[in-house]
Amino acid sequence: MAAVGRIAGVSQVTVSRALSDPSKVSPDTLRRIHDAIEVTGFVPNALAGALASRKSKLISALVPALTNIVYSSMLKSFSARLRSEGYEILLSETGFDPADEERVIATHLSRRPDAVLLTGIHHSAHARKMLLGAEIPVVEVWDITDTPIDLCVGFSHAATARAVAEYAVERGYMKAGTISAGDERAHRRKTAFVDRFEELTGSSVAQYDHGSLASLGQGRKGLAHLLDNYDLRNGLIFCSSDLLAQGVLIEAHARGLTVPDDIAVIGFGDQEAAAELEPSLTSVRVDRTTLGLTAAEAVLARLEGKDAPPRSTDIGFEIITRDSA
Amino acid sequence: MAAVGRIAGVSQVTVSRALSDPSKVSPDTLRRIHDAIEVTGFVPNALAGALASRKSKLISALVPALTNIVYSSMLKSFSARLRSEGYEILLSETGFDPADEERVIATHLSRRPDAVLLTGIHHSAHARKMLLGAEIPVVEVWDITDTPIDLCVGFSHAATARAVAEYAVERGYMKAGTISAGDERAHRRKTAFVDRFEELTGSSVAQYDHGSLASLGQGRKGLAHLLDNYDLRNGLIFCSSDLLAQGVLIEAHARGLTVPDDIAVIGFGDQEAAAELEPSLTSVRVDRTTLGLTAAEAVLARLEGKDAPPRSTDIGFEIITRDSA
Repeated sequence: MAAVGRIAGVSQVTVSRALSDPSKVSPDTLRRIHDAIEVTGFVPNALAGALASRKSKLISALVPALTNIVYSSMLKSFSARLRSEGYEILLSETGFDPADEERVIATHLSRRPDAVLLTGIHHSAHARKMLLGAEIPVVEVWDITDTPIDLCVGFSHAATARAVAEYAVERGYMKAGTISAGDERAHRRKTAFVDRFEELTGSSVAQYDHGSLASLGQGRKGLAHLLDNYDLRNGLIFCSSDLLAQGVLIEAHARGLTVPDDIAVIGFGDQEAAAELEPSLTSVRVDRTTLGLTAAEAVLARLEGKDAPPRSTDIGFEIITRDSA
Repeated sequence: MAAVGRIAGVSQVTVSRALSDPSKVSPDTLRRIHDAIEVTGFVPNALAGALASRKSKLISALVPALTNIVYSSMLKSFSARLRSEGYEILLSETGFDPADEERVIATHLSRRPDAVLLTGIHHSAHARKMLLGAEIPVVEVWDITDTPIDLCVGFSHAATARAVAEYAVERGYMKAGTISAGDERAHRRKTAFVDRFEELTGSSVAQYDHGSLASLGQGRKGLAHLLDNYDLRNGLIFCSSDLLAQGVLIEAHARGLTVPDDIAVIGFGDQEAAAELEPSLTSVRVDRTTLGLTAAEAVLARLEGKDAPPRSTDIGFEIITRDSA
């Protein structure tokens, strides 16, 4: 800042004033200060302002896995909206373990974020206490509850899976299997699908739970396991993600089976690739851009003291019918 | 903090002292303060400490696209290593435009990060000036140069593509096409491949540049365009990403062509899925975990004033031979 003042021919106090309230200095002085800033590459210190105003203009965003497109695409619209209002995102990966999440929440709160985005609705008791104690907006996303910590924007995982079971039965599938990743939400979808499908058809659903993150390889293994152990001819496989469903398509093709005639498949997530697969993939779409935006708007409404946002917003889902089922 | 003091039966000054230097208070007092922190869910304020110590314990990480697995998997190891030393990641997406990147750099520097990670080696003149002026470690990744702003950890894009051309010719492919995304690094790889392949074979390379982000759909369109306009029978397609190559496999399959006999394909990035595709995909592997870790270690060495890290570290690459070429 000293160099800026020297070049502009003003005191450091004037530079500081020009940055915090430009109306307090003359247009000519302001122009000289801006030129000096341009020349020196000086960047004002936001930390001092944050401490003085008790606003850090930071928003914490905690997601289980950075490399999962589901979370990164939601974050993309969430952070773009908040950046347009001058906020930056402090991002951390929490994994799928509430104890890990609790540690990350504590570190983030020590940075005094103005708000926090959390993935999911299941958090440790101490994490909830810290978040309540922070007295800042908290938005839980990618699930739904009537009793969020503060705000919630998401959808019902059980409802999506029941809708898939009903869709399958309407389409005439009387046999089904599931391939599921190891996380709690995937497990909840699987259970809801199994319950509803069995209720509607009376036939029991074959299940393959691989207990890890989704991958093409687990999709291939899952189909192999199900076909080798159960009679699923002309049946349907519900996968907990599009990635697993894509693995099913590859394995079916490698075995000379035709999708959907020999075996049908439905994914979850409706990733960009779903429409381009061969055959194209029927999947459950949750609008991640809308989800991220809605969460950002809820946080902004709370921060700006405007109309209180709804505590809980269900953004719904849609089954996108394509060729695979 | 007031509540913590009340419950522990000590003054706020004592609580503050216990947090900044636990050796200054008695073990009994410390235990009472910790119990009170546990009960209240109190989280210390790191902003005040950051301003006093001139260390924010924040590291800025700027990547072009959050949703690209290439960057997110590198970030995963980079941030895990830094978090183990008490740093948190301030993350932003910059897009592929240097002017956008410049704006993001200015905002990040105003947060006084202790170091900055930038993707690529091409940045605006003003961005370079701001970064030099900040006098903090800067690590440029995912490319290589002898004249980084500060530190560089990456690999040569041109060298990877020349190696692919040499591999193709060794394998007997005398015709080739390329399918490339719209970013500058993809363009540089394509050009290096084309130059080297044409030099070795004397035959000209057919090119499809789609000018946007990679997708399965662009891979399918790219192959369709190349096959419809050029004679590439028994030739090879070099794609600027595995995603495009996966689209090529799908389109080839839809057209009843056999890979690699009718048309061979090589990807770039060696994503997890490459080994699970049918046929499995030959691709260029850059070890993103090592890249993120090496960048983190370089930053840490600089921050801790240890041995000066090498200015430029080439982590190299490897062609992973599978069934597609």
